Amino acid sequence: MKTYRFNNSQSLFTRAAKVIPCGIYGHLSPAPLVPPTAYPFYAVRAKGSRFCDVDGNEFIDYMCAYGPMIVGYNHEEVDAAAMKQYEAANCVTAPTPVMVELAEYLVDLIPIADWAFFAKNGGDVTSYALMVARAATGRKKILMVSGGYHGVAPWAQVPGHHGVMDDDYKNCIRVKWNDYAAFERAVNENPGEIAGFIATPYHHPTFADNELPAKGYWQKIEAVCRKEGIVLIVDDVRCGFRLDMRGSHEYFGFKPDLICFCKAIGNGYPISALVGTDSLKSIVSRIFYTGSYWFSAAPMAAAITTLKELKRINGPKLIRETGEKLLGGLVEIAKGYGYDLKVTGHPSMPYLRITNDESVMLHQDWCGECTKRGAYFVSHHNWFISTAHTDEDIQKTWDIADDAFKAVKNSRGV
Amino acid sequence: MKTYRFNNSQSLFTRAAKVIPCGIYGHLSPAPLVPPTAYPFYAVRAKGSRFCDVDGNEFIDYMCAYGPMIVGYNHEEVDAAAMKQYEAANCVTAPTPVMVELAEYLVDLIPIADWAFFAKNGGDVTSYALMVARAATGRKKILMVSGGYHGVAPWAQVPGHHGVMDDDYKNCIRVKWNDYAAFERAVNENPGEIAGFIATPYHHPTFADNELPAKGYWQKIEAVCRKEGIVLIVDDVRCGFRLDMRGSHEYFGFKPDLICFCKAIGNGYPISALVGTDSLKSIVSRIFYTGSYWFSAAPMAAAITTLKELKRINGPKLIRETGEKLLGGLVEIAKGYGYDLKVTGHPSMPYLRITNDESVMLHQDWCGECTKRGAYFVSHHNWFISTAHTDEDIQKTWDIADDAFKAVKNSRGV
Repeated sequence: MKTYRFNNSQSLFTRAAKVIPCGIYGHLSPAPLVPPTAYPFYAVRAKGSRFCDVDGNEFIDYMCAYGPMIVGYNHEEVDAAAMKQYEAANCVTAPTPVMVELAEYLVDLIPIADWAFFAKNGGDVTSYALMVARAATGRKKILMVSGGYHGVAPWAQVPGHHGVMDDDYKNCIRVKWNDYAAFERAVNENPGEIAGFIATPYHHPTFADNELPAKGYWQKIEAVCRKEGIVLIVDDVRCGFRLDMRGSHEYFGFKPDLICFCKAIGNGYPISALVGTDSLKSIVSRIFYTGSYWFSAAPMAAAITTLKELKRINGPKLIRETGEKLLGGLVEIAKGYGYDLKVTGHPSMPYLRITNDESVMLHQDWCGECTKRGAYFVSHHNWFISTAHTDEDIQKTWDIADDAFKAVKNSRGV
Repeated sequence: MKTYRFNNSQSLFTRAAKVIPCGIYGHLSPAPLVPPTAYPFYAVRAKGSRFCDVDGNEFIDYMCAYGPMIVGYNHEEVDAAAMKQYEAANCVTAPTPVMVELAEYLVDLIPIADWAFFAKNGGDVTSYALMVARAATGRKKILMVSGGYHGVAPWAQVPGHHGVMDDDYKNCIRVKWNDYAAFERAVNENPGEIAGFIATPYHHPTFADNELPAKGYWQKIEAVCRKEGIVLIVDDVRCGFRLDMRGSHEYFGFKPDLICFCKAIGNGYPISALVGTDSLKSIVSRIFYTGSYWFSAAPMAAAITTLKELKRINGPKLIRETGEKLLGGLVEIAKGYGYDLKVTGHPSMPYLRITNDESVMLHQDWCGECTKRGAYFVSHHNWFISTAHTDEDIQKTWDIADDAFKAVKNSRGV
């Protein structure tokens, strides 16, 4: 099987590094890609489940822009809705009626939601959820999960990182995921001081196996939150609309007070949302929270169309089944080469790791070999499955994976 | 002159209030509009300098989406560039070449800029600037101006507001605008502890007259920052590209280390930027800061086209002249009715206040009467002039202003 070259990506990156810190920063940075020479750095076209890079290579994309893409790149109906709204009015001095329609749609769709609030970044609404929890309870402290990701605001950063002060996270108490005893202990050690608990529906850290909630974990957490008046916040930025159209809490059977959405909600058009229960509506009304582009109408039109399309085709069921089929095949192919490909997390957002090598260098090699052959995924982050991934994509990915395992085996001899 | 009615706006707002906290929140909230019945709440179309509301009324818009609009709503070239990029690739797993082009363009355009970093909200980059200043200096404290607006992150909020803790702003020291002695005192009282000073190029608070920098103010500030190793941060989110294409600091003759841009940079397409000097590039590279939509290509394509168009037509000169002509006329018309219309700030972003009435109720009435006649502006916030405002718009605004003064005079008898 032919492998791709990335000459144009690399020379463009050299140009970029002169005028952009890191060349490419943040979650798209090539830094964790091993080896970086196995990956394209710049896209020029995207359609359905695939994108093309600046070297003319085509990839089946299992990162889906790290989550925003869910019904396929350049989805006709979603784009048509957005373009129609752009042509009429987008970012204007007043909002447009589509803002009301989207809020009504979310309140209808999500059982716990009595209201919706819109922003741009996922981090806008996770940070806002903390402010709401603090304002509602008059308490300062926030419980959160060690290694959980809630954006890049200083409170959400890894303590000790550059630019982050102790004061930024001194009111954030981190407990281990799935460790109900640790959660209970933290609550007992801070009586009447915990404003909120924020966590993703299941634990999907980078560079580590993902973990679904233990049986009863969320239900016990919910019971304590109710008893202690702690605002229960789900960060559904990554999972939202991939596990369950009604919010991922429905999938795991519990009820939060606030849910943060972003990514898949608008299929890449920039919008995030905080939804919540009636009891928090008036306190939300009293916090001044806004942004220059938050009332823009085109992303709202895109979100309505994305959500309706996902509902129409039962998107969460579809991508779960696609994920299960794809992953089942990959695990079998790996076995044929003597490799144990471990899949964790939900099949629609799987985290993969070849366990034969504790250092993950083997797994990194395999990911790079797959990407060089046209199936793009990274070694350190969960994948995203979309409704645009086809049986043809799966078959081609299996072929690529097979050839990549063979290449890894040949080069390592193990 | 006929006055508008807003029945559809009001009934849509009633619907909105059921599913959205405040119905409309943030800077677009009708709460500070007096009386709210004089204002439209929902737009359906926008083109050039004007927008139409849900009741079929048309307005000459002097708020310009509170700043993002600068070359006119639905500007043909800007939209074409954005749409072309949407059709190719927007929010994908890798950035696109346009990210490099925009960074190169900004580095060329802005003398102090050696690099550029892109995000979504203005607040993304003001908050980031603080992290960069802290990481670069190893210090915690930030100097800022009382009443200055830098977004809605807790550190930037008014102390004591709902959801904001003492801990959020305990490292932020507020000094009065244009009070160099206060600035110097704060520096001396916190020796070796000030990481950065953040301020807008001139002081443009809401609900108060705006203030240009006193002669020598910025130059003295700059000298102290250099001497003390304080990172000098300009929040050019509101003024950027309205005063000077090279950054508003050039207009006032000083050199910052970091500049925050947003709003006008993309004519409403969602993008913000932090630019800075070479000495800060490596520390920026070490801070993890990112967002789901920050690499989206269409807003970057829109930004390049907006900036090139502004440069081509000398946008800052054009809107300054438009502002001067418009405001000169309005002041004269006011005089004819015995009203003193005070204009503060820069002519391209004027703040207006009728001084005859200290309570500003008279001014509020006049703003409402103008809006009801088709010239939209609010009483508590600076206006924005765009390059799309025409002589015809100015003449019509003068006619509206005249009729509105007459109506105010008649109803009040003063």
